[in-house]
Amino acid sequence: MEAVKIGLLGLGTVGGGTATVLLRNAEEIQRRLGRGIEVSHVAGLGIAQQSIVDPAKVKLTEDAFEVVNDPEVQIVVELIGGYTLAKDLVLKAIENGKHVVTANKALIATHGSEIMKAAAAKGVMVSYEAAVAGGIPIIKAMREGLAGNRIQWVAGIINGTGNFILTEMRDRGSDFNDVLKEAQRLGYAEADPTFDVEGVDAAHKLTILASLAFGIDLQFDKIYTEGISKITTEDVNYAAELGYSIKHLGIALKAEEGIELRVHPTLIPEKRLLANVDGVMNAVLVYADAVGPTLYYGAGAGAEPTASAVVADIIDTIRGMNVPVEQKVPLLGFQPEAMRNIPILPIEATFTSFYLRMNAEDKPGVLAEVSEVFADHKISLEAVLQKEAVKGESWVKLVLLSQQVREEKMNVAIKEIEALSAIKGEVVRIRMERLG
Amino acid sequence: MEAVKIGLLGLGTVGGGTATVLLRNAEEIQRRLGRGIEVSHVAGLGIAQQSIVDPAKVKLTEDAFEVVNDPEVQIVVELIGGYTLAKDLVLKAIENGKHVVTANKALIATHGSEIMKAAAAKGVMVSYEAAVAGGIPIIKAMREGLAGNRIQWVAGIINGTGNFILTEMRDRGSDFNDVLKEAQRLGYAEADPTFDVEGVDAAHKLTILASLAFGIDLQFDKIYTEGISKITTEDVNYAAELGYSIKHLGIALKAEEGIELRVHPTLIPEKRLLANVDGVMNAVLVYADAVGPTLYYGAGAGAEPTASAVVADIIDTIRGMNVPVEQKVPLLGFQPEAMRNIPILPIEATFTSFYLRMNAEDKPGVLAEVSEVFADHKISLEAVLQKEAVKGESWVKLVLLSQQVREEKMNVAIKEIEALSAIKGEVVRIRMERLG
Repeated sequence: MEAVKIGLLGLGTVGGGTATVLLRNAEEIQRRLGRGIEVSHVAGLGIAQQSIVDPAKVKLTEDAFEVVNDPEVQIVVELIGGYTLAKDLVLKAIENGKHVVTANKALIATHGSEIMKAAAAKGVMVSYEAAVAGGIPIIKAMREGLAGNRIQWVAGIINGTGNFILTEMRDRGSDFNDVLKEAQRLGYAEADPTFDVEGVDAAHKLTILASLAFGIDLQFDKIYTEGISKITTEDVNYAAELGYSIKHLGIALKAEEGIELRVHPTLIPEKRLLANVDGVMNAVLVYADAVGPTLYYGAGAGAEPTASAVVADIIDTIRGMNVPVEQKVPLLGFQPEAMRNIPILPIEATFTSFYLRMNAEDKPGVLAEVSEVFADHKISLEAVLQKEAVKGESWVKLVLLSQQVREEKMNVAIKEIEALSAIKGEVVRIRMERLG
Repeated sequence: MEAVKIGLLGLGTVGGGTATVLLRNAEEIQRRLGRGIEVSHVAGLGIAQQSIVDPAKVKLTEDAFEVVNDPEVQIVVELIGGYTLAKDLVLKAIENGKHVVTANKALIATHGSEIMKAAAAKGVMVSYEAAVAGGIPIIKAMREGLAGNRIQWVAGIINGTGNFILTEMRDRGSDFNDVLKEAQRLGYAEADPTFDVEGVDAAHKLTILASLAFGIDLQFDKIYTEGISKITTEDVNYAAELGYSIKHLGIALKAEEGIELRVHPTLIPEKRLLANVDGVMNAVLVYADAVGPTLYYGAGAGAEPTASAVVADIIDTIRGMNVPVEQKVPLLGFQPEAMRNIPILPIEATFTSFYLRMNAEDKPGVLAEVSEVFADHKISLEAVLQKEAVKGESWVKLVLLSQQVREEKMNVAIKEIEALSAIKGEVVRIRMERLG
């Protein structure tokens, strides 16, 4: 059979990785697929990038639209990233009847619905395995591997930069800003790290996971997002003392009243596998009714790990060409007409446990006062840690772990505690999940 | 679209679980698949089993051949287990042009080649996701999710009974036989536990994983298999002291001279995720050239976890019906004509590190003598642990960790050490893998 012709948009980290993997593993891929994959067209900026591919065999251009409009190209692989240009290119490719593979989480999370609709109308496929958790085949696992289940919740470490920073803070006792600088030096964090450390990138990925889990629309704007830049080594250490690790999790959970979608730092028991996912690695824990918990671990970023997912999507796309749409895996895992409109809960209506840290006056009766506030609100405490006063200070650190409670109830309790004369300053809070 | 008619062979643990999941999750499955799945025929022994299904809607029989021969049945789901009858039923189903889904690892590992050939000739699918690691979608991950990679090695905890026993031995300090009895009481181990604890079940699964990893025939008879029944709490404790856990691993590895296929107790660094997979849970770590390490974790057995994989296979089978064979995922992940004949190495030709424990006379110079033997054979030692003599005894325990070495070289060294007058009895050895 003839090789399938691929047009590659972008020759940066992932584009270069994809070109490399397709070339190096051409024989193994052919053994599996039964036919070849030919990178016939490439749009890359400048000669330095373009030197990755052989200009004798590949049509090179700096204008990505040339690739998207070339009738020879069967599958467009969008690895440019960003929103506007990528969206225009993907929509144009679809309009031209081409299948699309993309690693662009921002694009799928924010414009995915429009793109999926256009693709469905044209009868083409749009694949995005590389958009979530890099090389981990989590999209495939959720859409296909767990297709017999009702998925109940998903909790993932889906941003490697953030996980690297939290791991280093714990292992070395360094503070957030020092580790961030180290991460930037190593190339794990961008010059402007906002996207990663404030949880935007994780929220993009969670948008996709939630859609696949529950058969709901992509709703990036409804995700509660909290970053890790305020996490201190003090909290990391107290958490460890209590048997917990702090991880930056993306959580999608089907509750009685609706769906919880949240990205925030989270204490999790250190015995959990997820707590032992260190450095830049990613992992996604899925809880489903028949299979129970399953976990998927691997590299969440990097040239070749991401390329691994891109190439798997290309292979799937080739296998799906000309297969009737009703026999294909739906683009978002559920049949378009079976998508549901389930309310996304505001953060105040979600249920979690809490880690709370406060400065309390070093005198008898303060803990009783604080406990009473929680008792008034029927919030149970699981653990209390009282640290002796630092020499010369009249304040002690009080660390509490609560049982699960509706967030708005905890908000009221915290306000009351902050109003106590024996409590100095704000109560620091970090959510906690047992993942049991 | 009309519902697809399924014939279920077997209504034991997995058969009952499959019937339950298909019924309970019918709506969610329909949302994904776009059509219904109807259990139209069931072969189960006796009324007690058959009470799981509604006799008003299902054709019940005690004769599984009736199901296999019924023209109405489109997919036969074999959940009887064992070899002879299951094989006859599966081959008959294929002959009748029916697709087959099975959870039967023993059948696939030992008769898989014959079955796959028959299926290919008839143009039907045979799926077996549930045969390895229960509910973990590892077959799908390796065949499809990692299809762009050259897989280099696979290491898995693929027998829950064995992992439960080793976990309890470590956590409670109980010895093998006590924990085995506990496992039998809890229903985790059979009355005759040989299959699980001696590694036969793990070898069945490894046979399948190796085929999927490298594109080689199913070769159960070539696997080196060693059980866990000789592991002592003493070794578990020394391993822990050195920073290692003992796990019963199935390992398939592409070495220069050929493929290593081995099931044996293995020391692994306790920081590895695999070392933290406890109790009856399973996990498979795959190392591939582009993606690097990925790990897949979940329940390896049980009614509904296994049913989860069976139902995923049923859904995939329905999606694949009438799709041209050249566009389907090949039954063993590689095109039949691309399968390779790579030599499977005898255990003597494999490379691992070793944990060695011996009784040495409590006098100066013994460690030097032992070390000299290793030096003579150019075997490097990584760690030495010498335990003080028990009161009243003139022997000390000597525990050594070696660097990687060809097994036949280690065999010679161990023989020489056992011949030393200062060494009493046999040298206990457990292989060790860093999984780095």
